[in-house]
Amino acid sequence: MRTAMGWQADGPAAPLRRVSLERRDLRPDDIAVRVDYCGVCHTDLRSVRAHPGEGNAPIVPGHEFTGVVTEVGPEVTRFTVGDQVAVGNIVDSCGVCAMCWAGQENFCHEFPTLTYGGTDRRDGSTTLGGYSREYVVRDQFAYLLPAGLDPAATAPLLCAGITVWEPLHALGVGPGTRVAVAGLGGLGHLAVKLAVALGADVTVISRSADKSDDARRLGAHDLIVSTDPGQMAAARDRFDVVIDTISAPHDLGPYLGLVAMDGTLSLVGHIGSVTVESMDLLIGRKKLSSAGSGGRPATAAMLDFCAKHGVTADIELLPSARVNEALDRLHRNDVRYRFVLDLSDLS
Amino acid sequence: MRTAMGWQADGPAAPLRRVSLERRDLRPDDIAVRVDYCGVCHTDLRSVRAHPGEGNAPIVPGHEFTGVVTEVGPEVTRFTVGDQVAVGNIVDSCGVCAMCWAGQENFCHEFPTLTYGGTDRRDGSTTLGGYSREYVVRDQFAYLLPAGLDPAATAPLLCAGITVWEPLHALGVGPGTRVAVAGLGGLGHLAVKLAVALGADVTVISRSADKSDDARRLGAHDLIVSTDPGQMAAARDRFDVVIDTISAPHDLGPYLGLVAMDGTLSLVGHIGSVTVESMDLLIGRKKLSSAGSGGRPATAAMLDFCAKHGVTADIELLPSARVNEALDRLHRNDVRYRFVLDLSDLS
Repeated sequence: MRTAMGWQADGPAAPLRRVSLERRDLRPDDIAVRVDYCGVCHTDLRSVRAHPGEGNAPIVPGHEFTGVVTEVGPEVTRFTVGDQVAVGNIVDSCGVCAMCWAGQENFCHEFPTLTYGGTDRRDGSTTLGGYSREYVVRDQFAYLLPAGLDPAATAPLLCAGITVWEPLHALGVGPGTRVAVAGLGGLGHLAVKLAVALGADVTVISRSADKSDDARRLGAHDLIVSTDPGQMAAARDRFDVVIDTISAPHDLGPYLGLVAMDGTLSLVGHIGSVTVESMDLLIGRKKLSSAGSGGRPATAAMLDFCAKHGVTADIELLPSARVNEALDRLHRNDVRYRFVLDLSDLS
Repeated sequence: MRTAMGWQADGPAAPLRRVSLERRDLRPDDIAVRVDYCGVCHTDLRSVRAHPGEGNAPIVPGHEFTGVVTEVGPEVTRFTVGDQVAVGNIVDSCGVCAMCWAGQENFCHEFPTLTYGGTDRRDGSTTLGGYSREYVVRDQFAYLLPAGLDPAATAPLLCAGITVWEPLHALGVGPGTRVAVAGLGGLGHLAVKLAVALGADVTVISRSADKSDDARRLGAHDLIVSTDPGQMAAARDRFDVVIDTISAPHDLGPYLGLVAMDGTLSLVGHIGSVTVESMDLLIGRKKLSSAGSGGRPATAAMLDFCAKHGVTADIELLPSARVNEALDRLHRNDVRYRFVLDLSDLS
């Protein structure tokens, strides 16, 4: 075993505390990564707050990070020591099911191994995430960081970025596609940037007009205030694709109303039960879908696209010692648009 | 005004009774149709049972019928007296909105005028349906019955047929598409016939194996028993398109589980609120949609297709005087597969 410093949650109410944690010795196809930057995702917040408390396995969050390869196993051919790499929310999959063969490891029939809180497929241990100075990962699930991308601002691409890339790509968003992005947070601001880079005509849907300047700075062409019935009615049936990044449960009716005939509302912010009126789908032959993370080929393609178009997240970089402040502020939606922890203070 | 005999519901519990009802005098673009055959749709049952009762406007159901033109208004050019025609569940629309321009009058922004229980756009009267010996309709919303189609067995195509044709067509079902049809009733049996005629590989999903012979007779290649977990698990991710014709509220999870990656579950049987787990959509990038009726061009195309491929409904033809028996048996799902009323007993 190897040891590394990290930030651990022991229960739903307690602040994360600095601990020494164990990493496995490298298997033949493993690499060791010195984690430099790790994004703070809503999933991290949900996982910590849902922690069952004392006596249960601790959680070390973090599933979008970048760093440098410090050691490679004897069978690793894709990386060498010193390479800059990125890791997302999946670190293994069965590799043999139809979904894995299709490069959609995120849909693995045996369920993919999650970067934290997952169960390692070989030794059965619980995975510990990237709020840590080191991560040991199977080489197949690390990505070479393309040249020119800032490592700190790139970290959020590995979860927030691929989550919105998936529906934009699957729904064929390109030049001229009319895209609306509901909610302008960590997911939403990347959806705007990626859709703009893809050539789409992009509108932000927000609860207030406050974010209008930000929306335009990110490249959006318009902003609709969701609490203004007149604006919402005027935008009826206007968008080929609506990416709904709102993390709280909410009525989908008004957002389906914005979808053009044969268009799609894609849910990426809220995971759980959703209720729709079948008539809201029927009228205009609209579709409801959902997305979250992506497979290895899509993740690599997204990183290449971002390097080519200079797309990274707008981040607020904090020393990892301020992780609890980051989680509290994220809970209050007080971030534009993604916290990234600098883990060098754990050295 | 003109008069015609028909079957009228005065309340939710009372049987339909034979009445003399009024039809408008022909407008310049109207035709008068002697109704010969009218299908009995689940919507008819729902409408009658939901009738608010005494003192409220009576309901004359029926929105899928065929008959013969008996008179034409002076501006009518598409029909002459003696033509065999068919009418569905829409008899007018605004004609100027984007949906009407696109030939999707069923999605008219001003809402289409329904064949019964709707409000006539010119005189504000409540429309009375096809359980009647005569119907007066705007020529645009009648269809010439293609030669070779049996008028009685064709009547159900005008609602049940177009309802399942819409998603099959919109989702690009053709040779080799893997289609599952859940529920083998009025909608389901037509979905099977149409999908088979389109060249698809068709499987019926039914609560029991009883309908296996029927499914094969209709052209289906397989039947899966939905109450058998082993069969359902073995069919996971197998179908590009699942047409869900089940009329009662039900859990969509098992049916989404049958959808292949990037495939669609289309709801055509149950109208109302539906709840799905977003993860059931997310895993496999599946889509949820809904359909019901269609626009004028699609309806005409469906009729032509049915004439070419010899597709009509499997019906049980009853004299219209047995309408209450038909509704009762439909309520118990005791019909294979559609009741059609013969209205000649109203002459």
